[in-house]
Amino acid sequence: MASTLRGNLIIGQSGGATAVINASLAGAVEAALADGRIDGIYGMRYGIEGLLKEEIIDLRRQPAALWPRLRHTPSAALGSCRYKLQEHDSERALDILRRYNVRYLLYIGGNDSADTAHRLAQAAQRSGYELSTISVPKTIDNDLPFTDHCPGYGSAARFIALATMDSTMNTISIPWHYPVKVIETMGRDAGWLAVSSALGKRDENDAPHIILIPEQRFVADRFLAQVEAVYRRIGYVIVVAAETIRDEQGQPLGAAGQVGTDAFQHPLLSGTAEYLVDLVKKQLKLRARFDKPGDLQRMASNCVSATDRDEAYLVGRMGVHAVLDGESDKMVTLVRHNEPRYHCTTGLADLAQVANEQRLLPDEYLDASKTMVTQAFYDYALPLIGEPLPQHARLELTKVQP
Amino acid sequence: MASTLRGNLIIGQSGGATAVINASLAGAVEAALADGRIDGIYGMRYGIEGLLKEEIIDLRRQPAALWPRLRHTPSAALGSCRYKLQEHDSERALDILRRYNVRYLLYIGGNDSADTAHRLAQAAQRSGYELSTISVPKTIDNDLPFTDHCPGYGSAARFIALATMDSTMNTISIPWHYPVKVIETMGRDAGWLAVSSALGKRDENDAPHIILIPEQRFVADRFLAQVEAVYRRIGYVIVVAAETIRDEQGQPLGAAGQVGTDAFQHPLLSGTAEYLVDLVKKQLKLRARFDKPGDLQRMASNCVSATDRDEAYLVGRMGVHAVLDGESDKMVTLVRHNEPRYHCTTGLADLAQVANEQRLLPDEYLDASKTMVTQAFYDYALPLIGEPLPQHARLELTKVQP
Repeated sequence: MASTLRGNLIIGQSGGATAVINASLAGAVEAALADGRIDGIYGMRYGIEGLLKEEIIDLRRQPAALWPRLRHTPSAALGSCRYKLQEHDSERALDILRRYNVRYLLYIGGNDSADTAHRLAQAAQRSGYELSTISVPKTIDNDLPFTDHCPGYGSAARFIALATMDSTMNTISIPWHYPVKVIETMGRDAGWLAVSSALGKRDENDAPHIILIPEQRFVADRFLAQVEAVYRRIGYVIVVAAETIRDEQGQPLGAAGQVGTDAFQHPLLSGTAEYLVDLVKKQLKLRARFDKPGDLQRMASNCVSATDRDEAYLVGRMGVHAVLDGESDKMVTLVRHNEPRYHCTTGLADLAQVANEQRLLPDEYLDASKTMVTQAFYDYALPLIGEPLPQHARLELTKVQP
Repeated sequence: MASTLRGNLIIGQSGGATAVINASLAGAVEAALADGRIDGIYGMRYGIEGLLKEEIIDLRRQPAALWPRLRHTPSAALGSCRYKLQEHDSERALDILRRYNVRYLLYIGGNDSADTAHRLAQAAQRSGYELSTISVPKTIDNDLPFTDHCPGYGSAARFIALATMDSTMNTISIPWHYPVKVIETMGRDAGWLAVSSALGKRDENDAPHIILIPEQRFVADRFLAQVEAVYRRIGYVIVVAAETIRDEQGQPLGAAGQVGTDAFQHPLLSGTAEYLVDLVKKQLKLRARFDKPGDLQRMASNCVSATDRDEAYLVGRMGVHAVLDGESDKMVTLVRHNEPRYHCTTGLADLAQVANEQRLLPDEYLDASKTMVTQAFYDYALPLIGEPLPQHARLELTKVQP
């Protein structure tokens, strides 16, 4: 049922930024600019934290040329936050929304942001304030439920796949210099990003050789045996490890020396790659080092998947259509179609079911070793990362006789 | 004086690979294929180490389509090495070159590789074996003397500049989450790569805010005061640090726990970024983390400077012209011209003077703080990194009143 109420739209960005979250903002703003039913188009500066401080930006007062440029600019142009909404915050937020006559609210973010949007929607409903609240999905972790995949993931996956291919070229050029390399990826509790390192792998000897993901318990002996076996077979080993790997006791590797949690009680971690490098050096006496692209994997402006960017724009646009249709307390989802070729349409899922639920990597994407992916994963992920990955040229090693 | 001797050409790649060292190989091979005076075109598998083991590849037996593809493939397709030629090695190498009737030798590499080429040239001269030996410059560290710059540097510099811009976008989106970020670059004893992080900086508040290079002694109190001052001014701090930073006693930061040296007695280091992050956390109680792109900065296939690639191809080609002209014991150099616009021709420098000499970052490229570059550095480096860096779009922060 379409809303008959005229009012203002406010948009927020929340959680870890991605290379395409601004495409969702551009999609939403351009859809809003094109529709006469929306009066003001506002932006929360730094998400809900900014809203609570009335840091509200006028998005109609931007040069029109900005939006196509922002579609190609990484990170959250409005500013982001990682703030867990408290009970009294919802009431205060509603008061502010009322004063600014906001009737449509889009919140672009991941799991925690969906929780925020859900609390706002619930508070509005309780107090009888007519507010359409829609969450627009975004996360490189790809761990939101009910959507085929999450905008932001395809670009980060492309980055990790290409980084693994490229960085391995260095190891291959002189394998005995540092025979073991660990590449550390993000992903929080989900292995989606770590396993995307395999997307450029074409045969058993190609990197990566071992993928460590949060869904699988780490057993040091098994890991070291795997490293040694690959080393004996081909002379070098590329390991890709998610930032959070837990041992058999459930303790994160490399947690020693790290303290504290973020606002959502997620522990702050670092050090998985350092831990694995030290372990290999000490136990196998092999030289090892690590690459840790860090924030670059969520931000690389020259490694964006065009598919991902287009889909990010689409979910932003469809978020506006949803609020104008009077939908609320829902998240836009991506619905995959494989015929006649890969493309996505959108749907809606109830935020009550989305919020705080994580979709971990399903077992069917892991082979028996649990450290490598299956063909089913390639079928799932390759369409998301845009144009095909390059095939690096190699020499034919025909020896000369004197 | 042109050589009248017909014979075979052998090419080796040595030292740390780059994103464009294969362009030099392609340039050399394509020049050799086009010249009737060269019989066999051989490649050393893994540089001089492979030569000494007679691991010699036939480069005429490659599909013609390979060379244009290899021009765009990162890393050293022949394989590389980091091996310091011993006295008896030179004689053995000469015996092998004699048996394979090699009269032309190209060695693509950095300082240590120039040393190897010089020793081979000297040994050939002593024993009266007619051999033209030319070194072709390559190093992301940009520390070879007598050449305006080194092929490989422009692409790595572009990567670091863009990585700094992109990664900073994440910090800006939520500055208080991790207000201090350290990005660790390579560069061994030279700061060229670390200072290239400033190439996308347009004003004082843009990142990076502090650059730490090997040429300057690290003073912890001064560093912490700088971090605190930037933090107080804008709320976040981006530090770029070279992998090797020495304290006032000349000890590398983060050296603790690292042992050993490579074949050239260069110490093996890691941990500068971790050290700085820990220092900031402990002393300033600010949350900090680091990005360490590692091998990716020398390999990123999607961040190559077209200028760099073209110049790498050029020096490979000119290396073949030089050996055919009977030149020996020399390195190809890049000679810069700024009129009518930036371009390079090539020259030759005596290897005796090149070998083992490092060109560190000159003082004129550092401002009074010694942690930021001058305009002179932009004038020097911007032409090397190819097309202009992107300008990331930003919102106008016009606030809405209720």
